[in-house]
Amino acid sequence: MKKYDVIIIGAGPAGLTCALYTSRSNLKTLIIENDIPGGKLSKTYEVENYPGISSINGAELAMKMQNHALSFGAEMITSQITKVDTDKKKVILSDNEELYAEAIVFATGTKERKLALPYSDEFTGRGISYCAVCDGFFYRKKDVVVIGGGNSALEEALYLANIVNSITIIIRRDVFRAEPGIVGKVKENPKIKIITKSVPDELVIENDTITGLRIRNTETDEKTIINCSGIFPYIGADPENSLIPDICLNEYGYVKVDTNMETTVKGIYAAGDITDKTLRQIVTACSDGAVAANAIKKSLDSK
Amino acid sequence: MKKYDVIIIGAGPAGLTCALYTSRSNLKTLIIENDIPGGKLSKTYEVENYPGISSINGAELAMKMQNHALSFGAEMITSQITKVDTDKKKVILSDNEELYAEAIVFATGTKERKLALPYSDEFTGRGISYCAVCDGFFYRKKDVVVIGGGNSALEEALYLANIVNSITIIIRRDVFRAEPGIVGKVKENPKIKIITKSVPDELVIENDTITGLRIRNTETDEKTIINCSGIFPYIGADPENSLIPDICLNEYGYVKVDTNMETTVKGIYAAGDITDKTLRQIVTACSDGAVAANAIKKSLDSK
Repeated sequence: MKKYDVIIIGAGPAGLTCALYTSRSNLKTLIIENDIPGGKLSKTYEVENYPGISSINGAELAMKMQNHALSFGAEMITSQITKVDTDKKKVILSDNEELYAEAIVFATGTKERKLALPYSDEFTGRGISYCAVCDGFFYRKKDVVVIGGGNSALEEALYLANIVNSITIIIRRDVFRAEPGIVGKVKENPKIKIITKSVPDELVIENDTITGLRIRNTETDEKTIINCSGIFPYIGADPENSLIPDICLNEYGYVKVDTNMETTVKGIYAAGDITDKTLRQIVTACSDGAVAANAIKKSLDSK
Repeated sequence: MKKYDVIIIGAGPAGLTCALYTSRSNLKTLIIENDIPGGKLSKTYEVENYPGISSINGAELAMKMQNHALSFGAEMITSQITKVDTDKKKVILSDNEELYAEAIVFATGTKERKLALPYSDEFTGRGISYCAVCDGFFYRKKDVVVIGGGNSALEEALYLANIVNSITIIIRRDVFRAEPGIVGKVKENPKIKIITKSVPDELVIENDTITGLRIRNTETDEKTIINCSGIFPYIGADPENSLIPDICLNEYGYVKVDTNMETTVKGIYAAGDITDKTLRQIVTACSDGAVAANAIKKSLDSK
């Protein structure tokens, strides 16, 4: 029977930092990842808001974080997980191997709903961004499109308004899903133009660069090209919570945690984007991982 | 009248990250520091738990964070502050200049009570450490001394017990100030030896390296040398709160904040070690700074 002090599920910034801190505290630590280590970070083209590192490729920063965690003795495996038994602190891998731990940390992150247009994957991180706080500055004084009519789409549009030259918001319906207060602010903002009853139709690409977005009017089928350097789809993100018990989740499917990052189940922690929090950034995820690790160490010390 | 969007007081990791995020959001940002930029970080010899950077001198990391923040347009000045008027959002510098802001962030940190022995300043960060979570690993399998009998001294001793070879706790009285539960665990731990009624008397230094601590029995005046590579004084730390209104502080003098890092006074935020929190680390301070910045941006967007 394989037994660890801590099993961390997910090797993004939260999971890797948690592993760095637990292994540095001499806790026997395993990280389980089902995809490329680094999480969303590894798919980010350029990061320029991780404090102390002025500019770095996301995959490179992810690799540094991984090496950092492993340097203190944390182990990492790539595997799907069939089930997590939070009461017995047991993780069952897809090959049926059973692993046990004193504490389990869910650092599984979220998955953005992607813009489903041809070539949109290729341009994610260089023309298409799912994070205005992360990437807005790259579009300083440029023209961008925001897709979506919910609160987060409009919040991000307002965020961008001070930075970029112009914003065109594309919404499918003729009314916003967002709260009236924020809709009012968007409508008052001279930099923001709103196009209703329209959906994205095709990326306009010149010289391997996005130069516009073709949209289609859902009533008339008329097609229009909007010139832009950046496209920010805010069509939702889903927490990766399939392994997490319902009792740990809030109404939106994110994990409720206390100030120690512990869930409602003792010994079960969560860190990073999967948690219910105000700002999802690399550095806030790292902080969560450190806090969870410290709480686990203290909890095991007092056993 | 000089007017900023944000004035940040303190240029440690929390303040610098806050400035990075606010200036990157195009908010006009001023950082005011009364000492060397970097806060406690700049006085740390080696940092090896900042995720993604496996080992770096503290002052160098502080300089990188400073340059990073300034690269997006934040301004920084070195000045004492006479007064902060939190209602008018006004900062009065020691030369009587008055500065105004939409939001003010206190990132003033804490000040450890220092070991008052000859040469103890010179060996801080290389033999004397005020942070077991930060530096414990450097003393892996070595002998260390912990000075102090409060909760934090004993917590740090238990933290170190899994990492180091042996721990000697020195306390002035013959009873601990700490809670009985943690005292029991310390007494049960085979790695920990307790010496009561004793105070630090002199550092034992050989070849520019700490090799021991001479202690003095407060009753008999007898002097004893304890061989050790590391000394962890936990004789208390004080929040740097002299500029902060009492209404924002908890009973220990730390700043109470909500999930947006906003204090009980609207538009007044705090970030980093000065706040009431569970873990004081570089990365948790950075996270606080980012969260405060994001909340300020959202709050100004909605004005």
